Amino acid sequence: MADGGWSYRDAGVDLDAAERAKDRLKALVAETRDANTLSGLGLFGGLYSVPDDVEGPVLVSSADGVGTKLKVAFMAGRHDTVGQCLVNHCVNDILVQGARPLFFLDYLATGAMDETVVTEVVTGVAQACKENACSLLGGETAQMPDFYADDEYDLAGFIVGLVERGRILDGSAIAEGDVLLGLASSGLHTNGYTLARKIVFDHMGLRVDDEFPELERTVGEVLLDMHRSYLSLLWPLLQRDRLHGLAHITGGGIPGNLPRVLPEGLGAAVDRGSWTPPPLFRVLQRAGGVERDEMYRVFNMGIGMIAVVPPGEVAAVTAELEAAGEAVTVLGAIERGSGVRWTD
Amino acid sequence: MADGGWSYRDAGVDLDAAERAKDRLKALVAETRDANTLSGLGLFGGLYSVPDDVEGPVLVSSADGVGTKLKVAFMAGRHDTVGQCLVNHCVNDILVQGARPLFFLDYLATGAMDETVVTEVVTGVAQACKENACSLLGGETAQMPDFYADDEYDLAGFIVGLVERGRILDGSAIAEGDVLLGLASSGLHTNGYTLARKIVFDHMGLRVDDEFPELERTVGEVLLDMHRSYLSLLWPLLQRDRLHGLAHITGGGIPGNLPRVLPEGLGAAVDRGSWTPPPLFRVLQRAGGVERDEMYRVFNMGIGMIAVVPPGEVAAVTAELEAAGEAVTVLGAIERGSGVRWTD
Repeated sequence: MADGGWSYRDAGVDLDAAERAKDRLKALVAETRDANTLSGLGLFGGLYSVPDDVEGPVLVSSADGVGTKLKVAFMAGRHDTVGQCLVNHCVNDILVQGARPLFFLDYLATGAMDETVVTEVVTGVAQACKENACSLLGGETAQMPDFYADDEYDLAGFIVGLVERGRILDGSAIAEGDVLLGLASSGLHTNGYTLARKIVFDHMGLRVDDEFPELERTVGEVLLDMHRSYLSLLWPLLQRDRLHGLAHITGGGIPGNLPRVLPEGLGAAVDRGSWTPPPLFRVLQRAGGVERDEMYRVFNMGIGMIAVVPPGEVAAVTAELEAAGEAVTVLGAIERGSGVRWTD
Repeated sequence: MADGGWSYRDAGVDLDAAERAKDRLKALVAETRDANTLSGLGLFGGLYSVPDDVEGPVLVSSADGVGTKLKVAFMAGRHDTVGQCLVNHCVNDILVQGARPLFFLDYLATGAMDETVVTEVVTGVAQACKENACSLLGGETAQMPDFYADDEYDLAGFIVGLVERGRILDGSAIAEGDVLLGLASSGLHTNGYTLARKIVFDHMGLRVDDEFPELERTVGEVLLDMHRSYLSLLWPLLQRDRLHGLAHITGGGIPGNLPRVLPEGLGAAVDRGSWTPPPLFRVLQRAGGVERDEMYRVFNMGIGMIAVVPPGEVAAVTAELEAAGEAVTVLGAIERGSGVRWTD
């Protein structure tokens, strides 16, 4: 208790620091504005006019967090990538319904209001918003001492995108015989970190600055690899109705995510021999003694996005993706049934 | 480490429990659907068609958390009100820009996946969504062991509402001489809990089941009082363009929030003698030895919403609000200047 009585600052909440942080964020946020953004920071709600160039506009919205990948960021003292992971994750989640992003809001809750860390985190959020042509419309930065440790924070995000009603990707076009094309992930993305951290730090006894086995990079670098956005790669194909469906491979892996976009009565046959998971996954599996099916249920295993493509389009779609520098893997095909059936 | 190797469950993440919780939430979510809700749970993104009955539709969006009011919920073992506080807070934040809610998404992060607690929390979210005619379009429930304690969680929310472009409440109509009408809060709402908890639990040594001084209710009951929604009360007035502005009194109190809606060159003169803060605030101030200005900077002091009303409308607006059972206080008036000037 301070001299004479309690204040909010004595209790651990610094409203002035919060104001200063907000001032530093204003410029970052301003860079993400577009023609439809009607408000800056500071209002109770952010304002965004519905684009009028879409017939039967449907909003597509998703909420997500970064999970315990944040723990790796804390250990490495690196806070500029987790915001990008978060935005890209959300962008992919609405892309698979056929939507392009309109705007994003973040929720950042922290023990102490470290202006440098807060600015670094939101810089990452704003940068990814810019890269995905998405307006950073607002957000909440909450000071919650004795809830979060002083040097820890949680980060969540919310996205709203737009799709023309007739172009919603809801999987209804998917048919037996459609081909599954796999696109590479860039590391663990934002899933499986609780298990990966147990194996790497507790079981293998590695530290964040140690070299990761089989890779000439540090543990921190490998585990902080950015969650990719597939927007710029896939948007041109969506615009020309080339895809029957898209599945973002997040928590639950291929068996947990691919069935989410399949219509009743259809399943997927996937050949795990069709691609080689990157060394990161092999090291985790071997060092942790993790069963093979568990690996594929927890991690993306090197496949971050699956496109469901009619057989007649496979050659053209593959050529277009490869021309954009992407490696494409034929993982299997749609069949009668349900869920994912491993064919190996 | 389990026999034979690590699994995700050994690491503390139970995907099956998450699936079971999701199944229990589906029915709750379904009850909040409206004619524009195009999707249920389970998709990557929730789908909501833009209502076509509004000319020049503008989306208004806000993100918020519950703050450390959650700690009181943990202590009391009561999890069905915090979700309602969250939704009502968000509803108020877009209401003050003139918007009615369309849809809501929640982010719930927890140490262990306690299906009962998760269901209780989301039941509160869903109930408040129903009461505010807002579709619960999606959300994320994250299991983050060794990040959150097993029996703790954080809860954030995200709302999207709609306003006609010509009816955005942006404060530009506010003029010198406009009258400030205060509407009662219901307790602390969701702000100032870090200070309130320090005073009540650490300094006064009260427990959550003890009777709160001067009030014939327990500490837990008093501190968990629900954050009110002002939507049903104020929407009829907004529809008839009776208000020049609205300020939701949240973190920062009246001086931190009222100026957010005032145009350049105008300030507010507020007479703190015009209303009597409820006993809860007097007890906190006295017991904590908190300075008067600090109290008004941290807490809402009994005023949860301020309406800025042209002088000629004051009688009619007050009569209408009183007819709806509301007590209305004339707090002061708009004047040249900036910020809030206490006149007492």
